Amino acid sequence: MTVDEFARQLRLGHVTSARATDDCLERIASLDPALNAFIHVMAAEARRDAQARDAELAAGHDRGPLHGVPISVKDLFDVAGTVTTAASRVREGLVALTDGPLITRLRQAGAVLMGKTNLHEFALGPTNEDSAFGPTRHPLDPSRMSGGSSGGSAVSVATGMALATLGSDTGGSIRIPAALCGIVGLKPTAGELPIEGAVPLSRTLDHTGPLTQTVTDAWHVFHALRGDTVVKPLSESPLDSLRLGVPRAYFCDVLDVEVRAVFDRTLAQLQRTGVTIVDVDIPHASALAAVYSVIVFGDAAAYHADTLEAHADRYTTPVRLRLEMARYVLAEDYVRGLDGRQALRREVDTALSGIDALVLPTVPVPAPAIGASTVTLNGKDEPVRNLLLRLTQLFNVTGHPALSLPMGTTAEGLPMGLQLAGTRGQTDALLHVAKAVETAINR
Amino acid sequence: MTVDEFARQLRLGHVTSARATDDCLERIASLDPALNAFIHVMAAEARRDAQARDAELAAGHDRGPLHGVPISVKDLFDVAGTVTTAASRVREGLVALTDGPLITRLRQAGAVLMGKTNLHEFALGPTNEDSAFGPTRHPLDPSRMSGGSSGGSAVSVATGMALATLGSDTGGSIRIPAALCGIVGLKPTAGELPIEGAVPLSRTLDHTGPLTQTVTDAWHVFHALRGDTVVKPLSESPLDSLRLGVPRAYFCDVLDVEVRAVFDRTLAQLQRTGVTIVDVDIPHASALAAVYSVIVFGDAAAYHADTLEAHADRYTTPVRLRLEMARYVLAEDYVRGLDGRQALRREVDTALSGIDALVLPTVPVPAPAIGASTVTLNGKDEPVRNLLLRLTQLFNVTGHPALSLPMGTTAEGLPMGLQLAGTRGQTDALLHVAKAVETAINR
Repeated sequence: MTVDEFARQLRLGHVTSARATDDCLERIASLDPALNAFIHVMAAEARRDAQARDAELAAGHDRGPLHGVPISVKDLFDVAGTVTTAASRVREGLVALTDGPLITRLRQAGAVLMGKTNLHEFALGPTNEDSAFGPTRHPLDPSRMSGGSSGGSAVSVATGMALATLGSDTGGSIRIPAALCGIVGLKPTAGELPIEGAVPLSRTLDHTGPLTQTVTDAWHVFHALRGDTVVKPLSESPLDSLRLGVPRAYFCDVLDVEVRAVFDRTLAQLQRTGVTIVDVDIPHASALAAVYSVIVFGDAAAYHADTLEAHADRYTTPVRLRLEMARYVLAEDYVRGLDGRQALRREVDTALSGIDALVLPTVPVPAPAIGASTVTLNGKDEPVRNLLLRLTQLFNVTGHPALSLPMGTTAEGLPMGLQLAGTRGQTDALLHVAKAVETAINR
Repeated sequence: MTVDEFARQLRLGHVTSARATDDCLERIASLDPALNAFIHVMAAEARRDAQARDAELAAGHDRGPLHGVPISVKDLFDVAGTVTTAASRVREGLVALTDGPLITRLRQAGAVLMGKTNLHEFALGPTNEDSAFGPTRHPLDPSRMSGGSSGGSAVSVATGMALATLGSDTGGSIRIPAALCGIVGLKPTAGELPIEGAVPLSRTLDHTGPLTQTVTDAWHVFHALRGDTVVKPLSESPLDSLRLGVPRAYFCDVLDVEVRAVFDRTLAQLQRTGVTIVDVDIPHASALAAVYSVIVFGDAAAYHADTLEAHADRYTTPVRLRLEMARYVLAEDYVRGLDGRQALRREVDTALSGIDALVLPTVPVPAPAIGASTVTLNGKDEPVRNLLLRLTQLFNVTGHPALSLPMGTTAEGLPMGLQLAGTRGQTDALLHVAKAVETAINR
């Protein structure tokens, strides 16, 4: 059941928050031992909160679209009374004393918090393999990765263990697992949602946002996270006046054959509905990975330096090695990274002029096997980590809003994501476009 | 003659721009061979422009307070058709094709550009000793330093080679030479004046602003640099409702005995006029030099890295050594520097709550001898460079507006500066306070 459908059924008296919460808890009990999406399940609190929301609604107090909705939270966010583990032994015993601002807003909107979800340790990785609590596994094939870093969040929504979830995205951490698990993930415009009350990876590039089953649900959760009390309904951009730009160079150079085929088919399908597709160019896209890395590494090293010196043994080995390497990044390269960021931002602004959104795949491959360090594409071994981040990190660097939605499955049934990116500050407009594209794809 | 007095005399027909310009050129001819304030004198252009301004005024076109005023420009700013040397052989032959934005505004306000003034090479130093064109010397004692990096600018105004000047200030480069040479120097709020069209030292901490003989002149030039066409007259804050805060710890710990005596006497003088003086605290002031250094070095290394690799021999040795060292600053330290900057900004905001301005000396010592690497204070050898920057760099780090004005002279006759720092975004209010303090000191 989607958030939107639940809201309707709830007000028709066909479902209660308590019932939906119990359903989610049952799914957690049956599925999560194999999938490992949750680090901490808040069963008792969730049942209590659900009953309170039901009583409230019965008494005529309606908090809006998230009233009574079971929602999970990436374990990077402070929820009062729970340890914010960041999936790391480094943070053992660190109980949050207060809710972070987004948790406060979710509660005010009536959401029922189901628990804290697994992630790539400290959000430093797109696979969700390295976690003090073990990897999160793909719901359709437990030998494959969920994607990350918000992997537990994505799996919880894809399997109905929660109706929606709160994630964070520094290089694609919302959109990558959303794409691999077949759901919707939204990274809003930089600065639109607070990043306070979450363990930082890179204060320069960190974003927060929702993962949901549909674009409509992303709209509801996004506006609750903004703290909006009055929200207009989500409208669909008219397809026949929609103009989308495909950044071919770099972003379509290295794609799995099925991803390419489905992406091309999706573009053709959109064109048949009247959408205009044009080619656009991000001239310095090839500098992207370097710009991204020095900024993330510099920021992460500053945050982790003391802990690395005191408790290096408490990190998973791959995350520790990356952080130790990060400490050697030079300030001059960091500053040049910040300069490169401005240049890339201008290039994306330019690419977006005269079109409604960029359209590209979210991830170049379907979910790889857990443990795979490379994927072979066109006879060449591509490092999994770089590949997963390749198409999403641009919009963290530039701050443009970006969203992933399902665009079909491989012959094996593995989901793939279509990414849309819009004008800075116009996340609502991007959601209008995404809604229209979602409808066209499912037509 | 001050800018303000010149403006009055000009409109009374008692002086012309051509005459004032000739006077300045004569002073340059007689004084500058010994003082070395100018790198390039624009005599012919200045005479031509001055005549044009005189003709304009005769025809009834009055551009306002800077109409016809002879003004010098630190040779870090692009003036079309001249080399922007930054006092370095690295930039030999690099002729600016266009005026930078501040030069455009000065011309629009009617200023007559006299020439490009000497500076510490690439603005990387507060003594003005290291310049491809040799040191700028103190006007009252050529064996002493002018202070820097806008040393040539300060000397040009202190000696009447120009009526005002445009400088830049990354750690005190306007205020330090203003204090040592006995004039007024204003570093406005961060972001208030453009830093484009000037060779960068640190894009994070660079500021631009005027050096003038009086606070009123600083008001006129500052508003011309802002591009303001309608400017209210400078009013004086009423002394008996003025509250000034003295940051004692750190900022009054290491002071020359005469600076301390004159500062204390000045505070007592202000109190007698009705000013309330309170003590305030910047708790993490001792972290200041470290925060400042990593940011400036990181930014400067990013800008100079390629040139250092290609043309290291073209720098003066001290500047080259500092820049080469700067290349080893780590990103994690740079990022921590940026964090420290936020903390210090909050501390200065807090210190300013309930008072009109901070008051402190500008420089802990009068002008040191050229070549001195240390100054002995309280029996301890203090490095000159650190000492000169010690009291000014805070307001570059935090972005608060700060101004230096003369507060008297040593027994030997060397000037000392009093520094005032105000609320961010309220540079005009700071100038109102400075005008009142200037009047009280000269009473």
